[in-house]
This record gives sequence, C-alpha cells and structure tokens, in this order.
Amino acid sequence: METIARSGMVHYYYQVKEILQRSIEAGEYKPGDRLPAEQTLCERFGVSRITVRKALDLLVREGFIYRERGRGTFATVPPLKQPAQIISFTEELKRLGLKPSTKVLKAEILSGRKKIAQYLSLNAEEEIVLIKRLRLANGEPIGIETSYLPHKLFPNILSEDLSSSLIEITREKYSLSLRRATQRVKAIAILRKEAALLGIKPGSPVLYFERISFLADNRPAEYLEAIYRSDKYELTMELREK
Amino acid sequence: METIARSGMVHYYYQVKEILQRSIEAGEYKPGDRLPAEQTLCERFGVSRITVRKALDLLVREGFIYRERGRGTFATVPPLKQPAQIISFTEELKRLGLKPSTKVLKAEILSGRKKIAQYLSLNAEEEIVLIKRLRLANGEPIGIETSYLPHKLFPNILSEDLSSSLIEITREKYSLSLRRATQRVKAIAILRKEAALLGIKPGSPVLYFERISFLADNRPAEYLEAIYRSDKYELTMELREK
Repeated sequence: METIARSGMVHYYYQVKEILQRSIEAGEYKPGDRLPAEQTLCERFGVSRITVRKALDLLVREGFIYRERGRGTFATVPPLKQPAQIISFTEELKRLGLKPSTKVLKAEILSGRKKIAQYLSLNAEEEIVLIKRLRLANGEPIGIETSYLPHKLFPNILSEDLSSSLIEITREKYSLSLRRATQRVKAIAILRKEAALLGIKPGSPVLYFERISFLADNRPAEYLEAIYRSDKYELTMELREK
Repeated sequence: METIARSGMVHYYYQVKEILQRSIEAGEYKPGDRLPAEQTLCERFGVSRITVRKALDLLVREGFIYRERGRGTFATVPPLKQPAQIISFTEELKRLGLKPSTKVLKAEILSGRKKIAQYLSLNAEEEIVLIKRLRLANGEPIGIETSYLPHKLFPNILSEDLSSSLIEITREKYSLSLRRATQRVKAIAILRKEAALLGIKPGSPVLYFERISFLADNRPAEYLEAIYRSDKYELTMELREK
C-alpha cells in the first residue's frame, strides 16, 4: 500500500482517505471486505488515531465504506463518479478504459420529417442535418448513432470532421454549449441491416436511446436516435433519495 | 385558460408562470408552439408587462420555453420533474397516470448465494430474504422484480404485506431510509417462464435492471433484479451538463 507524503501541502487525513479510496475503487477491498482496524491503519501510515478517524468519516460521508458497531469498517460498492451527465461517446469510453473510434456512415441535409422537426422546434420545411455514425470500442462496433441537428444552428457543419465529438464541435466551432438533455431508453429487437453493421444476429435485444439536447437558452440543438449492443454496453446510473 | 387570484398570498408573476407551465406540461402548447405575445398575455391575465416578463424569465430559467429574437417565445420539451431518484414502483406509475398493483410470486429466506451475498456485504452463510413480485399497470403485467434483502436488517419482514412498497416498509416498519442506489440497465431477450408471466413472446426484448440500494450509513439494504416489458415501460432520464 502507498504511504503518505510528510512534506506536502495535503493534510494527512486527506492523503489516508485518498489512498483507501483508491484501494476500494481498484477492487483491492471488495464490497463487504473488512478494512484494517484503526490501530493497524495508524501504524501503517504512521499517523494518529484522530487522523485515521477523520479519513474514515470522510469515506463514510462519500459512500465508500460503512461501519458496523463492534465489527469494524467495511468497503461498499462505490458511488459512480458523475451521475447523469451529458458526456461524449469518446469521453464515456475513455472512462471505461476503452479506445473509442467512429466511422461516419451518412451525412446529409434533409427536410420534411415532421416528427423530427417537432423535436427540434423547427417548421416542417426547415433544414435538418442528419449524421449517422458507427461507434467502435477497441475496434469493435458497439453502437449506431443518428443525430439530427437544426441546420440554421450549425451552418457548414458537413465540412467539419464528423468523426470527432459533436459536443466538441458544438462548443468549439459554433460557441454553443448543451445545458441539459431528456433521454428515453427502451429495449428493442435489432433489424437486419443494423445487425449487419454491428456484427450481431438480427433480432438480438439492444438498448435504444432517444435523446433531445438543449442549449442554455432551451432551444433544442440535437435529436439523437441510438442503438447499442447490449452484450458490450450497459447504462449505469446513480439514483438519489427523493 | 385559468385566471390569477387577486387576493392571495402568491405573487402575480408566479401565478402567471404556473398557469403557463401547466399548459405546457399538459401539452396545450407543444414543443415548438409559439406562446401568445407579451401584450396578449398582459391583457389575458390583467397584469403589467413587467409581471409577464418576470413569469417568462422564470420559465426560461426552468427550461420550459425559449426565446427567438424577433420571433417570440416558444414552448420546448419540459424537463423531467425529478431526475434519477429512488422512487417506488407505486409512485412511479401514479406519476405516469397508471394504476399500479402487485402480486407476490415468492417470498422466502435463503442463504449460500455467493454473488448476492457479496452485493449485500454479507457472509455467504448469512440469511437473505428473497421477494419476487409481479408488477401490473392498470391490471396488465409490466414487470417482474426480485428483491434480495439482508435478513438481519429486516427481521420478520415475511409477515408484512409484501404487495405494498418495500421503500415504505423500510421506512415505516424498520425506520431505515435509502440514501442512494447504483443501477445498471441492459436489454435482454426474455426467457420462456418469465415471458409467460408477462404475457409476451419468449425472446422478446425487455429492459433488465440490476440495482443496489444503500442506507444513509452506506450499508447495502437491497439488491434488485428486475425485468420490464419494453412495449409498456421505458426509462426516462434527465441529463445535465458536465
């Protein structure tokens, strides 16, 4: 186990807390595993009982451990770091330790799609940008994402590198940022054509996402339809008390 | 449209905001629909321009409308009321305007289930309560939920009315409350036996949830495995910017 830095700017208790937290996150202590006794931790880190208690209190407060009277301190399933955020595919995969890549399948301007125009608060005649992309993790296809954007918000977007993150393009090329999104998730049976793209059997169960993302002023900036292989991808989320 | 109360304790602007918000939530204004002009709203509610503007500002801030310069004010897809919360099946269905009911399929004490014991931070020999329930909406089966609880936290729970909410039983009979939960969601093909219970074809795609719920002191209080019909139920969630 790591030791603490004696000469740094960081309080001992916080260093002890961070070291124990990393051990739990790395799975060295699994949910239900007992942590060493306070006295043992004092000796191991060369710190006082007060310091060890402060570190353990913080780990309790942040949801990494729990105490049982007379039995000791136990690791628990650590909370997810960032619940329910708008993050790019690229970033999400990196967090999972996977190498993301993207293949653009289609990019075009269309109009006259009534349902999609409504999701984007457009008139039926206004132009919509369609971008269909295959998403891969470590070179293996895991999802197909079809984004619909209001063309008037993203002029000339078809000349951008569409294999990069749309969130980044939105921010860096158009100085727009997404504030919130509403998402619906279903399970569906995949169709033949999409199954071929993902390399799975037609009819396999897949996760199906519909998401509308909004700018800070509440204008819709993207409507997304996405399919993810359920054998390679799962949605994880953190719930809070009411 | 409703009118505002002249003699109450509630500011006029707030009443105007609430009336417009309810119209948007009720779908009287759909996403992309233009709201009446400020002057029209002044006349309709009998209030000043400043009052109407204050109401509209609040609706923008809370994500119900957006403004387009020179074009007016438009309704948008309203945000979900409570993102990512621990709520009971009963409460969730009521929010969706459906009548929930529950049929207990199995309730027993077991032990020796290694994976589940680990999720619940128990030793393999410690007792686990299994409660398997069929969930119905308006009398139609929509899901099967199997809850696993540490028996030592819930002594005598098998003598409770298990068709009521476990969250409520936890709070009211055991004075425990759930603080957070970590949830994973997949799409799976349903097996024959469960398909029969839900009245759908074997192999149909269904949403599969695994959830661990924790008490305020981080002890795991429930491990849940649940299956929901995807034709009757979808997961909705609200995402925020990073």
